[in-house]
Amino acid sequence: MGTEILTIGTELLLGQIVDTNAGWIAQRLAEAGIDLFCKTTVGDNAGRIEAALRQALGRADVVLTTGGLGPTEDDLTRDVVAAVLGRPLQLDPAVLSHIERRFAHRKIPMPENNRKQAMVPAGAEVLHNPNGTAPGLFLRDGGRCLACMPGVPAEMKPMLAEQVIPRIREAFGIRSRIVSRVLKTCGISESKVDHAIGDYFREMRNPTIGVLAHAGEIHVRLTCKGEDPAEITRMLDDLEEKIRERLGSLIFGRDDEKLEALVGRLLRERRATVAVAESCTGGLIANRLTDISGSSEYFERGVVVYSNAAKEQILGVPKAIIQDAGVVSLPAVRAMADGIRRGSGATFGLATTGIAGPTGGTPEKPVGLVCIALAWDGGDVAREYRFHGGRELIKYRAAQMALEMLRRHLLGVAITES
Amino acid sequence: MGTEILTIGTELLLGQIVDTNAGWIAQRLAEAGIDLFCKTTVGDNAGRIEAALRQALGRADVVLTTGGLGPTEDDLTRDVVAAVLGRPLQLDPAVLSHIERRFAHRKIPMPENNRKQAMVPAGAEVLHNPNGTAPGLFLRDGGRCLACMPGVPAEMKPMLAEQVIPRIREAFGIRSRIVSRVLKTCGISESKVDHAIGDYFREMRNPTIGVLAHAGEIHVRLTCKGEDPAEITRMLDDLEEKIRERLGSLIFGRDDEKLEALVGRLLRERRATVAVAESCTGGLIANRLTDISGSSEYFERGVVVYSNAAKEQILGVPKAIIQDAGVVSLPAVRAMADGIRRGSGATFGLATTGIAGPTGGTPEKPVGLVCIALAWDGGDVAREYRFHGGRELIKYRAAQMALEMLRRHLLGVAITES
Repeated sequence: MGTEILTIGTELLLGQIVDTNAGWIAQRLAEAGIDLFCKTTVGDNAGRIEAALRQALGRADVVLTTGGLGPTEDDLTRDVVAAVLGRPLQLDPAVLSHIERRFAHRKIPMPENNRKQAMVPAGAEVLHNPNGTAPGLFLRDGGRCLACMPGVPAEMKPMLAEQVIPRIREAFGIRSRIVSRVLKTCGISESKVDHAIGDYFREMRNPTIGVLAHAGEIHVRLTCKGEDPAEITRMLDDLEEKIRERLGSLIFGRDDEKLEALVGRLLRERRATVAVAESCTGGLIANRLTDISGSSEYFERGVVVYSNAAKEQILGVPKAIIQDAGVVSLPAVRAMADGIRRGSGATFGLATTGIAGPTGGTPEKPVGLVCIALAWDGGDVAREYRFHGGRELIKYRAAQMALEMLRRHLLGVAITES
Repeated sequence: MGTEILTIGTELLLGQIVDTNAGWIAQRLAEAGIDLFCKTTVGDNAGRIEAALRQALGRADVVLTTGGLGPTEDDLTRDVVAAVLGRPLQLDPAVLSHIERRFAHRKIPMPENNRKQAMVPAGAEVLHNPNGTAPGLFLRDGGRCLACMPGVPAEMKPMLAEQVIPRIREAFGIRSRIVSRVLKTCGISESKVDHAIGDYFREMRNPTIGVLAHAGEIHVRLTCKGEDPAEITRMLDDLEEKIRERLGSLIFGRDDEKLEALVGRLLRERRATVAVAESCTGGLIANRLTDISGSSEYFERGVVVYSNAAKEQILGVPKAIIQDAGVVSLPAVRAMADGIRRGSGATFGLATTGIAGPTGGTPEKPVGLVCIALAWDGGDVAREYRFHGGRELIKYRAAQMALEMLRRHLLGVAITES
């Protein structure tokens, strides 16, 4: 069976808002074993919606629409569906009372044109919309299915996942599903990941393995196809275990987990604190750490020391180091990490100094050269890295590597120069 | 005349990469007075590309395709176009030599399958691609136009703007164009903007005015339709001048200008420097200021003082203030701004303290309460704000307002609490 998506909305067609729905729907369909063939976007124009809907219904088994279910003049989906399928619109009292209750709850009189949202094509199943006034519609017509959903992502997403996909799977007897899991690493090259798990990568048929480079991270994606969710989870767990045997603690997290959240969790578990001294990263490390709710428990302070005066004054970096080795050097970054640690009393001092560019590079110290150090009571580690990209990307990669240095130290993993 | 876009690529259909091209193309077409009716995405499947292309050519005057022009097996656009239009593929020696030169320049032998990219349907104009190996194609067929462009944004964008749009405008005798200009304000509500310029907003027919709220900014968009670019610029300049008479220096920038860049420019012009003391914004102000190349000229230092100890130690905030007024209070934020200014020797000290949430709020000091202060030699200003949204949005809005406070002070504009 084949599925098409029809996205309705002039603002989407004209690129005035970014269509985040279509990609999300496509991913959920793939996971549910539902094949997607085509995706079309048209504006709020009855003739063009009708032509696109007729075409889609003419070649697909399932058509999903988003948008055009609102109360205004240019919300045309209900009327077009009724016309194309030859199903007259009827007032659904249950839908009307749901809409009326929503307005009553907000103590606003219901505008007359919201009645329109209670008009339902004959024979349609109404899909409840707990997050808005527009209900969804599910129609069966000669072996095909048509589902109409609102365009607002917060309304569409639960409706698709909980009401539309189960109906499609049942209607077409689909039992397989696809589940993905992403294992994230940082500070290791794509070729090293490939070297470590290349045999699995090439041999595995189900789950399959994909390796993808993101800014400052290498992701290993495991994708498993099967029928039984418990069996799929077991297969993914088995493969994850095998990969973890090879990559171990180089994997910092799974799926949506962020490096700054993982570092925060490790610090909290150890009742440790961190203070940060940033030059080239300019506050990005502090900003990422403090994006995590509860970070005040372990983030003691940060300083952004752009001037040499600030490095000497706040951190006590000796003038001699800056004069002899330069402000972008391993001795300087060690002194920064140690200075912020001692000054703050935090368990760890983390420091960066480098050349974020695009100007300021020299042949010896080019744009992208970044020194990172971590200091603790009785020791420190410092490394030199060369990052590529524009100013913001260099800042990001340096912040990423600094957080990874702290994470690895907390777990006793070797800190490399990769 | 009507235009359709056909986007080709399985990774786009399945939502594995975000389609940034379609919205960009739609905007460029609108500016060029070219009407867009429909946008379709299909995977790398010859049958489905052919069906979608036939349909588009059957109802539109202009069809634009992106993707499927690469050298691999699943790059099918050339073959499908040749089949649908009945134009045999022919080797174009000039294209082949362009591709060969690109490989020679990179000192890599050209793989045999790159020859495929030099195959051109009979009668097609070749669109030069200075940024890649795949040339574009422009075909005229019975009054219709078909343009095939690469999917890589850096290759597609200049090709569309410089080669495709001029050909379409010429083919259909389009002389009008639409040009937009955005004037950006910060720290003023949408209703105040509407109050100030509502009469223009309602009366103007060309240019038209739209008011849009973004996170921490209100944008006024002027959209002008006309034929003569110089005349359009003059009309936009006239309206911009009228709006500036009302809003004056509340407008901080135009189009893509960022608040942190504007603030940096003003500081540089005045040979002034700034030092930042951040609590709830957690380094975001420093990070935004240092995203701008050359910021080391005016950004002296930043501190992220999450703990009370750090506020006392680094900034000299009196313990009594923290005990009496609390750490989120106007007296505390004034002391922070003054402390960072005196400690750093910078011209300005800018400080934030507040409750970013989602936890930590109380009935008196709820989540979203943020105090911001600016201190200079001989004076200061401090204000209390209430921001809405999640943790990251509250951080962003607070950073935005702090930058705006500095900007307004530099320009002598009143600093309000809105």
